Amino acid sequence: MVKEYINGNKDRFLAELFDWLRIPSVSADSRHKGDVRKAAEFVKEKLATAGVDKVEICETKGHPIVYAEKIINPSLPTVLVYGHYDVQPADPLNLWTSPPFEPVIKDDKIYARGSCDDKGQVYMHVKAFEIMMKNNLLSCNVKFMIEGEEEVGSDNLGTFVKENKAKLKADVILISDTALISLDHPSITTGLRGLSYMEVEVTGPNRDLHSGVYGGAVANPINVLCDMIASLHDENGRVTIPGFYDKVAELSAAEREALNRAPFNVNEYKSELGINEIKGEKGYTTLERTGVRPTLDVNGIWGGYTGEGAKTVLPSKAHAKISMRLVPNQSSAEITELFTKHFKAIAPEYVKVKVMPHHGGEPAVTPTNSKAFGAASKAFEEVWGKTPIPTRDGGSIPIVALFKRELGLDTVLMGFGLDSDAIHSPNEHYGVKNFLLGIETIVAFYKHFAK
Amino acid sequence: MVKEYINGNKDRFLAELFDWLRIPSVSADSRHKGDVRKAAEFVKEKLATAGVDKVEICETKGHPIVYAEKIINPSLPTVLVYGHYDVQPADPLNLWTSPPFEPVIKDDKIYARGSCDDKGQVYMHVKAFEIMMKNNLLSCNVKFMIEGEEEVGSDNLGTFVKENKAKLKADVILISDTALISLDHPSITTGLRGLSYMEVEVTGPNRDLHSGVYGGAVANPINVLCDMIASLHDENGRVTIPGFYDKVAELSAAEREALNRAPFNVNEYKSELGINEIKGEKGYTTLERTGVRPTLDVNGIWGGYTGEGAKTVLPSKAHAKISMRLVPNQSSAEITELFTKHFKAIAPEYVKVKVMPHHGGEPAVTPTNSKAFGAASKAFEEVWGKTPIPTRDGGSIPIVALFKRELGLDTVLMGFGLDSDAIHSPNEHYGVKNFLLGIETIVAFYKHFAK
Repeated sequence: MVKEYINGNKDRFLAELFDWLRIPSVSADSRHKGDVRKAAEFVKEKLATAGVDKVEICETKGHPIVYAEKIINPSLPTVLVYGHYDVQPADPLNLWTSPPFEPVIKDDKIYARGSCDDKGQVYMHVKAFEIMMKNNLLSCNVKFMIEGEEEVGSDNLGTFVKENKAKLKADVILISDTALISLDHPSITTGLRGLSYMEVEVTGPNRDLHSGVYGGAVANPINVLCDMIASLHDENGRVTIPGFYDKVAELSAAEREALNRAPFNVNEYKSELGINEIKGEKGYTTLERTGVRPTLDVNGIWGGYTGEGAKTVLPSKAHAKISMRLVPNQSSAEITELFTKHFKAIAPEYVKVKVMPHHGGEPAVTPTNSKAFGAASKAFEEVWGKTPIPTRDGGSIPIVALFKRELGLDTVLMGFGLDSDAIHSPNEHYGVKNFLLGIETIVAFYKHFAK
Repeated sequence: MVKEYINGNKDRFLAELFDWLRIPSVSADSRHKGDVRKAAEFVKEKLATAGVDKVEICETKGHPIVYAEKIINPSLPTVLVYGHYDVQPADPLNLWTSPPFEPVIKDDKIYARGSCDDKGQVYMHVKAFEIMMKNNLLSCNVKFMIEGEEEVGSDNLGTFVKENKAKLKADVILISDTALISLDHPSITTGLRGLSYMEVEVTGPNRDLHSGVYGGAVANPINVLCDMIASLHDENGRVTIPGFYDKVAELSAAEREALNRAPFNVNEYKSELGINEIKGEKGYTTLERTGVRPTLDVNGIWGGYTGEGAKTVLPSKAHAKISMRLVPNQSSAEITELFTKHFKAIAPEYVKVKVMPHHGGEPAVTPTNSKAFGAASKAFEEVWGKTPIPTRDGGSIPIVALFKRELGLDTVLMGFGLDSDAIHSPNEHYGVKNFLLGIETIVAFYKHFAK
């Protein structure tokens, strides 16, 4: 019945999703503030049409949160679905093969910013809910909380959660914002890394100088920034910030063995990324490096003349955005503080340094022995014919730790993307098959969870 | 008579110069191609009005060269004036206190891109020529060669010089494109550094990646570029490129002593630049570091997300513009090759590296015992009441070495700027006093040179 309904309505499902993807809801860019709200209004209306009891746009200090609920019987279990309708910036635009906000299907994949992260995955829940409503299958209460600031650190969600604990009462959180190992290897994410995201500014002279007149006599802030960044890793690929690894939960030999049992082919990985060699912290495998080890990456750097041709400038300032992925039991606030202290400490006397934190988020591990995890596992078995593999994901969904802390709720991370979906990159895409199987799996989850 | 003429016409001189400064002749930016030509047409017309025998716009593969001459008597000495009418890009625009191409006088200084480098200094020669013509003072033949590609490496001037040796026959080259120590300490530049200007590109993965999903397992090209740049200097501030110093002419103790006799106050220098400490190659003074030692500076760097807010991207590429200032007897072509070889050699296996040379130029030393240098020295004494101090300049005017090689001519570098004029920077300016005294000094130069 579910399969038939999906097949009979899939063109409409996709057309609706495309309308949503056309709204450039880039939360990081203030010029898109109106678009972000339009995307909220869109999902509010679709939830209303699908049959929720009530749906509202909840204002925050930033972008709004869409809340909806369908309470069929207060004594039945309640699932709280979390997702986000905001998207990453689309630049560099010139690398997209089709415009980021004009979705198209190529090779059975939906190409658009947000197709996988996270509008495409949120929309599976909206349509799964529609199916259950239309076919009288809903066996639990459902609540939806779809926010618009996930890509900028969910700054206002914490306050919302704290102020609405009664409203958000539920038995489990269900999130689709992660990836499967592959279409052949369904998986459920059981751990997520946290994040500290910093911006640094190094100032040398009080104005841009002529590199001929001053070069060699005055410290160049770009060179100094490069020195400082280079010093943040040692020769074994370890982060040199004092105390950085102090609270990292080391895995037991058994846990490491289990983690490395997930299918992974380094040659396929290298070839898919077009690299000759992988690189990371010495003594760990790729799955460990992205799953259970903390890391530090420069996400952006700029300074001096970056236009066409040559300009012989010794610039006044150089900048970088630097983020750290954190693992249990690191704390984002602590690591932010350690970074700030260290970066200032290593600044040589001939420059001035500013360190500004952007958003952060806590790492999280979800239980694999809960009723909800069992229901998710059975849902995959039923729809995919295979038991899903538990994995640790490198990305961050800071809200998972927040939910545990504030609401006392565990989360099930039932994501249907693929690592190759190019989320946060040009040409983000999402498989039509992932989208449709995802809807079916979500419906199956409710069935098993209600049992 | 000269002083009176200048005083009587200074408002017109400045108004004419302002018209020229309003033309944004940015040679590095192809969008300004038409403006570059307009600036050439402008000076062509002004030279014609001032009374040259002939003036022409000479086409090249790039921007044109303006050539003019006044031959009063073939048996008299001939001065060939070189200068450039192109200017540096004006960005970052937001740091200008008045628009770069809308010249204004503030505190007796002309603020505009090109006011000092080099339109303002070229225009002194045009007006000095006018004065000599109007007052029947011209005692030498004069030739003008004003190019439009100095700020992008004078790529086509070499060909022009080689193909026009007869036309360019002269006894000395006169250039005003350098700086005085101060208005109290007139000086003549006797040495210039050469230049190798490179652009590098480091490529990691074949697309921008999500730093959560891949961070820690795949080399980040920005981090790698920072490592590579950091490794280009050792702990003593010396450039680590093998062979970089091999051909550097070391100064004798006496030469070093003479060079350091120029007035220099490190506290004033630091306070003027707003820095707490100077930095440079160990074992050398600031005057040596900028005058006689080769250097390496990053002029620009970019990669990843550089917009507002935070984007957790592990970028595919990182870029930098890196230039080296060269001293006698280094060769730009050799250093370019050494850099290229070294930068590729230090690239780790997990990235791909491209190295592209921009323009270069040879270092030069000008004689201090020539008749022309003596005439310049006397001209300063007459107008400024002080004997000019010979100095070594950190900047590059690659054409000086070219003139020596192709035309066999020495150059006199009679520049009237100040290091604090912020050339190549926001708020470039040029003192009205420098401009007017410069005109007077140039007229005096001709008088002494003709003797």
